[in-house]
Amino acid sequence: MRQTIGDFLIRRLQEVGVRHIFGVPGDYNLEFMQQLEVRGEPAWVGNCNELNASYATDAYARLNGIGALVVTHGVGALSAINGIAGAYSEHVPVILISGSLPLRAVQRGDLMHHTLADREKGNFCRMFAEVTGAQARLTPENAVVEIDRLILTAWRNKLPVYLELPSDISYLEIAVPEAPLALEMMPSEWESLSTCTEMILRRLRSAKSPAFLLDLDAIRFGVAGQIMVLAERFHIKVATLNCAKGAVAESSSQYIGTYAGIGSSRATREAIEGSDCLLTVGYRRVESTSGFFTAKLPASAIHLNSHHVDTAEMTYQGVYLAELLQTVVDSSSGNPTTKPPARPPTKSTFVPSAEPLSQDAYWKAIQNFLQPGDVIIAEDGTSSAGFGRLTLPDDCIYVTGAFVWCSIGYATAALLGASLASPGRRHILLTGEGSLQMTVQEISTVMRHDLKPWIFVNQNQGYTVERAVLGKDAKFNDVATWRYSELPHVFSRDKKAETYVVTTSSELQKVLDAPHSGMVFVECVMNKFDAPIDLIIGGHAIAETDYGARGPQAAPNAQIALPTKPAERTVERPPR
Amino acid sequence: MRQTIGDFLIRRLQEVGVRHIFGVPGDYNLEFMQQLEVRGEPAWVGNCNELNASYATDAYARLNGIGALVVTHGVGALSAINGIAGAYSEHVPVILISGSLPLRAVQRGDLMHHTLADREKGNFCRMFAEVTGAQARLTPENAVVEIDRLILTAWRNKLPVYLELPSDISYLEIAVPEAPLALEMMPSEWESLSTCTEMILRRLRSAKSPAFLLDLDAIRFGVAGQIMVLAERFHIKVATLNCAKGAVAESSSQYIGTYAGIGSSRATREAIEGSDCLLTVGYRRVESTSGFFTAKLPASAIHLNSHHVDTAEMTYQGVYLAELLQTVVDSSSGNPTTKPPARPPTKSTFVPSAEPLSQDAYWKAIQNFLQPGDVIIAEDGTSSAGFGRLTLPDDCIYVTGAFVWCSIGYATAALLGASLASPGRRHILLTGEGSLQMTVQEISTVMRHDLKPWIFVNQNQGYTVERAVLGKDAKFNDVATWRYSELPHVFSRDKKAETYVVTTSSELQKVLDAPHSGMVFVECVMNKFDAPIDLIIGGHAIAETDYGARGPQAAPNAQIALPTKPAERTVERPPR
Repeated sequence: MRQTIGDFLIRRLQEVGVRHIFGVPGDYNLEFMQQLEVRGEPAWVGNCNELNASYATDAYARLNGIGALVVTHGVGALSAINGIAGAYSEHVPVILISGSLPLRAVQRGDLMHHTLADREKGNFCRMFAEVTGAQARLTPENAVVEIDRLILTAWRNKLPVYLELPSDISYLEIAVPEAPLALEMMPSEWESLSTCTEMILRRLRSAKSPAFLLDLDAIRFGVAGQIMVLAERFHIKVATLNCAKGAVAESSSQYIGTYAGIGSSRATREAIEGSDCLLTVGYRRVESTSGFFTAKLPASAIHLNSHHVDTAEMTYQGVYLAELLQTVVDSSSGNPTTKPPARPPTKSTFVPSAEPLSQDAYWKAIQNFLQPGDVIIAEDGTSSAGFGRLTLPDDCIYVTGAFVWCSIGYATAALLGASLASPGRRHILLTGEGSLQMTVQEISTVMRHDLKPWIFVNQNQGYTVERAVLGKDAKFNDVATWRYSELPHVFSRDKKAETYVVTTSSELQKVLDAPHSGMVFVECVMNKFDAPIDLIIGGHAIAETDYGARGPQAAPNAQIALPTKPAERTVERPPR
Repeated sequence: MRQTIGDFLIRRLQEVGVRHIFGVPGDYNLEFMQQLEVRGEPAWVGNCNELNASYATDAYARLNGIGALVVTHGVGALSAINGIAGAYSEHVPVILISGSLPLRAVQRGDLMHHTLADREKGNFCRMFAEVTGAQARLTPENAVVEIDRLILTAWRNKLPVYLELPSDISYLEIAVPEAPLALEMMPSEWESLSTCTEMILRRLRSAKSPAFLLDLDAIRFGVAGQIMVLAERFHIKVATLNCAKGAVAESSSQYIGTYAGIGSSRATREAIEGSDCLLTVGYRRVESTSGFFTAKLPASAIHLNSHHVDTAEMTYQGVYLAELLQTVVDSSSGNPTTKPPARPPTKSTFVPSAEPLSQDAYWKAIQNFLQPGDVIIAEDGTSSAGFGRLTLPDDCIYVTGAFVWCSIGYATAALLGASLASPGRRHILLTGEGSLQMTVQEISTVMRHDLKPWIFVNQNQGYTVERAVLGKDAKFNDVATWRYSELPHVFSRDKKAETYVVTTSSELQKVLDAPHSGMVFVECVMNKFDAPIDLIIGGHAIAETDYGARGPQAAPNAQIALPTKPAERTVERPPR
């Protein structure tokens, strides 16, 4: 059959499940935008800027399995590149479509706007090559092959890809396949799969203290179901890294909490570090996910990666995570005769008061507010540190960019993407003012699409996470104090939001308890130097790692200090 | 003498005239931020996000001669990279200091946050190599050499540079030179300079219709003074490209307007295309600055570039623009006995009315509002197109990114940088709502620093420039309509702004005429399909260039159409 290149690209996106497209129009992509508007689906979202679009698409792809955004050449693509690098760093399949120079200009060597005023020789492709899994400039002859290659590369590797669609070819009709594109992994290499499966089963059957340690690939590759079947069948304890919180139900009796080296509870450390059969999933030893390199995994660990398996003895190439785990499930049998009871939902004992709102009270109130099925987006910093100690109710989805790429501002735009990807759920954004200011305008897009999330903003006069690292009183850690609660009124003329400023936990609790019908925006005023304990501990560890032992963090009053009350100083997480 | 690496870097920045530093703190740069705060100068600005910081620094550097910003590794640097690419495209010396991973992590191959979770092997340096003039990662042994090399490269070439300052070395004391760094060009190669000067003088002395055509390097390299001396001495007509508007006093009798191929007035075209001695300065034939490649320069033109001179016969290497022009000035003599009188200031004949505010009335009112010495920042799109036909009073500075890199959102953040670089002048931002939404939060930084510019926002329901290209009625060209005039109230709790919504030219004129003491924010409501004539003409030309003759722009009602009244359809600029 024949189809225009633009229509074929849109069709492929639909076939693989893209229901919304993010981005910003620009002259080099308007012809494609027109094709999208004529077709009517996927739905066009329309962001305030491209960085926000890239963050929103990242969150959308985490929940939807894949996502796409459209930007214009150069200015749009480079504005989005930080979000794309984040998707690369945290393994998210995002398709960046850059409406680019007409192919004619490339062929003729014309100097064009939105370029470096040079003859286009692939600068942007080279830049994106550093932060994407694949890149292509479409031409009429390569379009079919490249579109499919890029989409499959994104999905199979959970990585972003960069696709340039020249503005003068989108409406050209080319011969295209009729069959839809199927999102399928390659089958694993049979011999590797078979020997690897046997090795894992042999180890599991002889293990006395097996454990799983899940990194974020356990979420991205959708293997939590198989992991929990094995966990119950073989009595395997399951811990996650901080960046994989929510990968499995925290109510499960198999779940033993977050592992972060010396930042873990004693029970979790012993279970992981003392395991005689530790199975890691997608494990990466990043300073910020390994308790600042204090993680000590047994040498006998089996490392399951997305496309290969590593043990101390050998590497199994061509073995793909989901197929491997399914094969292990299929090759073993039996269920525990009595499934251990799940833990009851966690509620904190918390009495709201008229005292100034503290971080402690705030997080207790948020814990009690959480419900099964919620989608929680926590910003890097105070929010991710505070949220890390909460227990997720069942079926919740936790979205955060707080542990590897750590780009503040992500969460506000991610709220948009996550909300569109999961209608019918309740969406909760937890952020601070420094982060909010980075990408604040995307709240207007949230309102424009009539979404009704809960937005909680910590208002405490600056970059609290930085104050815990260095510059407790420094002016460079201050930000302008806006009238945050009035933002929704400014951002929409026709959609109403319910806005509140709370200064005590009683006021906060009243807002949480009241019935609401629209978006709820809660500005939570807190003390400048109050911070979750893990933010302070983490901040001090960051300073040691970043600056070294001779660094400026040793000066008096350089950082927010740990609380003096011994009870609050415990580094350990509460036992489960 | 001995000095810490951080202090030496700050000292060098001060020596070359950096009085303000833009950026955002992050854990990898806090030790440097601390050094800056202790030193107390240059002043720390503190932006809402890094893209805005890069735009602000670009505008600051245009006015100040050089500028610098501090960001954190990866997330900060990539958020700023679009603005850095713009500085590269439009020749602005911006020093990007990226507080980066501790050198130890690079040496050990540690995986760190704010990276791609790989072993750092220079990904970001490679990305920045595409859009900067030089790059370096500092070490204790290279710091002195690299800091000076980067600063001089930026200043001599008017290009951005990328400097990684590892977080664990900034406080190390090293041996540094005591002598201040002097911003000096290399002297030109003597023989080339001499023969080139003679060639130019020979050509000028025999010329009957000499002309200058100035591209943006005439501004960046600060050679307008020498150009005007020569223009008066040899009776040379002077035209600028659209992107170099304001390079010379528009009241000068030598000035003949903007040259843009068929988009120029007849007189300007004839003067340039028929010149028997055309001297171009920094000329680049970009589609958007050459009347969509309709510019036709005489083959005999002499092309003066920043570092070399080109004629049809030969290239003079090692000849530097300012020194060459000064040598030509010094090697010739005489002034016109009677200096031709300057033109009187332009005032449009304009009667404010109670009719809905039109683009025509808006630009007439703005023309009359302009005063000598103003700094005008016009956003790409409606604002740059409308402003292009206005006459600049003497001593005005015009800042725009509208013609080469064309990154919308630039202007709002550029207002901050331009205002800090030129205290004592009046600053005027002309922007539209689609652009404003991109970088709106930087208005809060403008207010935080107690700056008092005029901000004019076109409120006309979307991306008007795109409607002129494609998608006149398309939903993708709509944006959410905010309550713009309420933004200043939200962005500051302690600074007051005077805000207005005007819907008629009478209301606009009343605001312009009234006395004001604070920042003035004027939301100008206009018709969705009303646009400056040059925006429509340009929009149609863009569509032809981008999509080709078979493109979708041919469909009925695909674009905002030219006015039907013949008098308004003239492509020609008004004769001067």
